[in-house]
Amino acid sequence: MGKISEMEMESCIPPGFRFRPTEEELVGYYLKRKINFLKIDLDVIVDIDLYRMEPWDIQDRCKLGYDEQNEWYFFSHKDRKYPTGTRTNRATAAGFWKATGRDKAVLSKNRIIGMRKTLVFYRGRAPNGRKTDWIMHEYRLQTSEHGPPQA
Amino acid sequence: MGKISEMEMESCIPPGFRFRPTEEELVGYYLKRKINFLKIDLDVIVDIDLYRMEPWDIQDRCKLGYDEQNEWYFFSHKDRKYPTGTRTNRATAAGFWKATGRDKAVLSKNRIIGMRKTLVFYRGRAPNGRKTDWIMHEYRLQTSEHGPPQA
Repeated sequence: MGKISEMEMESCIPPGFRFRPTEEELVGYYLKRKINFLKIDLDVIVDIDLYRMEPWDIQDRCKLGYDEQNEWYFFSHKDRKYPTGTRTNRATAAGFWKATGRDKAVLSKNRIIGMRKTLVFYRGRAPNGRKTDWIMHEYRLQTSEHGPPQA
Repeated sequence: MGKISEMEMESCIPPGFRFRPTEEELVGYYLKRKINFLKIDLDVIVDIDLYRMEPWDIQDRCKLGYDEQNEWYFFSHKDRKYPTGTRTNRATAAGFWKATGRDKAVLSKNRIIGMRKTLVFYRGRAPNGRKTDWIMHEYRLQTSEHGPPQA
């Protein structure tokens, strides 16, 4: 599942439609189906290996065919561990993602279905590094109040 | 073609997609195909008889199934004339649409493909009437610089 998919999104959405999902749709439909190995109608969210990519390389992998895009969507595994064990979990070659603020609940019909963590990309190595403008929202399913995160 | 269509849009767009067309897509794809009687992939723009409807009734006819909509799209004939001839062209039962500002060109690859007129709805009868917050953008094809409007 960490493998980079080479599939292109097939263009079967009529003109004028844009992918502007709500957080409820992202978590309750896309992430939930992905984790449960269920078919997703359209491969609009690609699989990437986040910690082997720099944020500025993600755009090309995740673009949807229209120009004005300034948000990109992808699936990636968290907590990828390497046998050599020298890299921290959220590091890339050029920098690292660092969490900021508090996690936020994603609701569906007043019920918590997932959590959102916000991360900022820093160039360099922790605890140093220069903050950039790249922001990531990381979503995970949340099935029970104190259950383990699932994605 | 002025007949009100009773068809409902079939829900074959995956979750997360919203109808957010550019003006180029509205004119160059939807309006152009409509006028040329060509098939449109999805009946996302319904036919209405604009001058038999009040603006606040249009929402129900043109809603797309998600909640946060604050723009509605439709096809309607301009310059509908009634044999009795007492109503002005842009009047409804409750008020009238009045043009405001200048027409704006709709471009595709630096070429004019259509024109956009902006109209405001007034309650009452011209030359009186109370201005409302309802705004309409009326698009027409424009094939040559001084050619007649086509829709």
